[in-house]
Amino acid sequence: MIVKLCRIAFFAALLGACGAASTAQAQSPDPLPSWNQGPAKQSIVDFVMRVTTEASPDYVAPQDRIAVFDNDGTLWIEQPLYTQFVFAIDQVKAMADKHPEWKTKEPFKSVLKGDPDVLASAGEGGAAQIMAATHSGMSTVEFNKIVADWLKTAKHPRFKRPYPDLTYQPMLELLSYLRANDFKTFIVSGGGQEFMRAFTDEAYGIPPWQVVGSSGKTEYRVWDASPSLVKLPDVQFVNDGPGKPEGINRYIGRQPIFAFGNSDGDKEMLEWTANCKGLCFMGLVHHTDGVREYAYGGNSHVGKLTDELLDHADAYGWSVVDMKKDWKTVFPSDKP
Amino acid sequence: MIVKLCRIAFFAALLGACGAASTAQAQSPDPLPSWNQGPAKQSIVDFVMRVTTEASPDYVAPQDRIAVFDNDGTLWIEQPLYTQFVFAIDQVKAMADKHPEWKTKEPFKSVLKGDPDVLASAGEGGAAQIMAATHSGMSTVEFNKIVADWLKTAKHPRFKRPYPDLTYQPMLELLSYLRANDFKTFIVSGGGQEFMRAFTDEAYGIPPWQVVGSSGKTEYRVWDASPSLVKLPDVQFVNDGPGKPEGINRYIGRQPIFAFGNSDGDKEMLEWTANCKGLCFMGLVHHTDGVREYAYGGNSHVGKLTDELLDHADAYGWSVVDMKKDWKTVFPSDKP
Repeated sequence: MIVKLCRIAFFAALLGACGAASTAQAQSPDPLPSWNQGPAKQSIVDFVMRVTTEASPDYVAPQDRIAVFDNDGTLWIEQPLYTQFVFAIDQVKAMADKHPEWKTKEPFKSVLKGDPDVLASAGEGGAAQIMAATHSGMSTVEFNKIVADWLKTAKHPRFKRPYPDLTYQPMLELLSYLRANDFKTFIVSGGGQEFMRAFTDEAYGIPPWQVVGSSGKTEYRVWDASPSLVKLPDVQFVNDGPGKPEGINRYIGRQPIFAFGNSDGDKEMLEWTANCKGLCFMGLVHHTDGVREYAYGGNSHVGKLTDELLDHADAYGWSVVDMKKDWKTVFPSDKP
Repeated sequence: MIVKLCRIAFFAALLGACGAASTAQAQSPDPLPSWNQGPAKQSIVDFVMRVTTEASPDYVAPQDRIAVFDNDGTLWIEQPLYTQFVFAIDQVKAMADKHPEWKTKEPFKSVLKGDPDVLASAGEGGAAQIMAATHSGMSTVEFNKIVADWLKTAKHPRFKRPYPDLTYQPMLELLSYLRANDFKTFIVSGGGQEFMRAFTDEAYGIPPWQVVGSSGKTEYRVWDASPSLVKLPDVQFVNDGPGKPEGINRYIGRQPIFAFGNSDGDKEMLEWTANCKGLCFMGLVHHTDGVREYAYGGNSHVGKLTDELLDHADAYGWSVVDMKKDWKTVFPSDKP
């Protein structure tokens, strides 16, 4: 739908024919050099041009240019396991000496044995136990240091690089492009807020207060006039699925007009964005590139993107990025 | 303590004598024209100069210049009742036709009778009932409109002006001064997040995602492909007292170095800020001006500032603003 909008007569009359606008665009340096020409890239550029051109009927004032992005599988790699879960598994191993009972207690026993399918076999309850055990019992300052240290040393099993190097170059360009056009960029992810904030500023240029994620409860304690926040094992808020619009309302407090996700957990965030008053942009990253990254969809236990959601995207004019076709490069280090 | 720091030899040697620095300051336009010269103003200007001067041992990089402000009684009026509570009382009256049972049910009965002491007589439980009844059962969009309309029409009983006109001019200047020095300014208030966000951008230049407050639960619902967030009567998070450091961690995700409050509910926020690595600034507004605003302290049921907290401020070198002495003007419309 958005691509088609470029054909609308009024807009064409206002800004010159689409061809002329494209030529103008081509003359200035390409803001998205890692994107191949195609409907996905065109839909983004058209949208940004229309909402930022003051004479356009779709003009949006800068303060209302709110863009939200899922993180895992949208801005960085999420296969073969969510990175935060890889971290949790490493933490179980690092903490095992202090928990001798884990040797005989599931799901910790399987983690310590190195079972590669522990996420699937542990189920939701088991995964929650692993997350709670490794994400509580320390202060927020201590936890932030543990995560920062891990992110510097841990390497992806296939690409042999630290995880923060496995962000998607085309999406980094998109974030910069939007910010250059006075958008505020936010992360709205099911991932843990504190875990993400350890790298989002450096990796994406997004400060911690623009990172919305799931969170655990904390407790304020003062010892010897020195205050700290202790991380508790209880969940405060799950920022996934219908939680994403709730998180957007609670943390951002303004209606987004641009959203990008990659899985069923992003459906409500995209729906919520599609409810904006004027022109809105909704995008999905489809992982179709088993050679350069991964090819997965509706059957994946990580980053599930059902045919139903793809049909929905098609019906409502949401942009679908075909990673294999649409991205010239995938990771920053692949740049020519 | 902060004022005294100006006397430290190393710093004096680095930037020239304090007298010279003050002269330089006086030559440029005063960024805080509504503040009288005195220890409070001087402590603010000294602090900002020290953390923003690259050659200073107390220099703080721009990304770490986080400033947090309480709202009620710190940035705007809170007497004779918290503004949000005045709103809730007006809402009970506006909603009464749909709730005939309120005529005989406390605390609503007293509200409808116009009891001026309803907040005190209803107690914490009664106040919570009034807040829940008036802040739920509608969508977030509907609620935002109700608040925005009310803020335009409701007038303060003594000053006969809309509440957003009863912000404190000296604090508006302080917010601008900090932002001009690359600080990020945040509100961290016990007040309702959605209520505050209806005016904080226009009144203070603080966008909604930099407003941290208390919040109720919401539920995502989709009717006829149109999504909405319904406000539920349950509390999600109370951002007051020990909740303030929790809120700072959850919403801001970075250690503040500057904090301003005015009551016991701000103690933990100030303590948390005082725990910063380098130089930090902690300030309290003391309402000492019964003529131009209100004079109140430890005995007030709104904005309680105990002698104990004042002693604590004195012992730890926190700045205390004496409204009567330190502020040349109080409200924006009082400007000469």
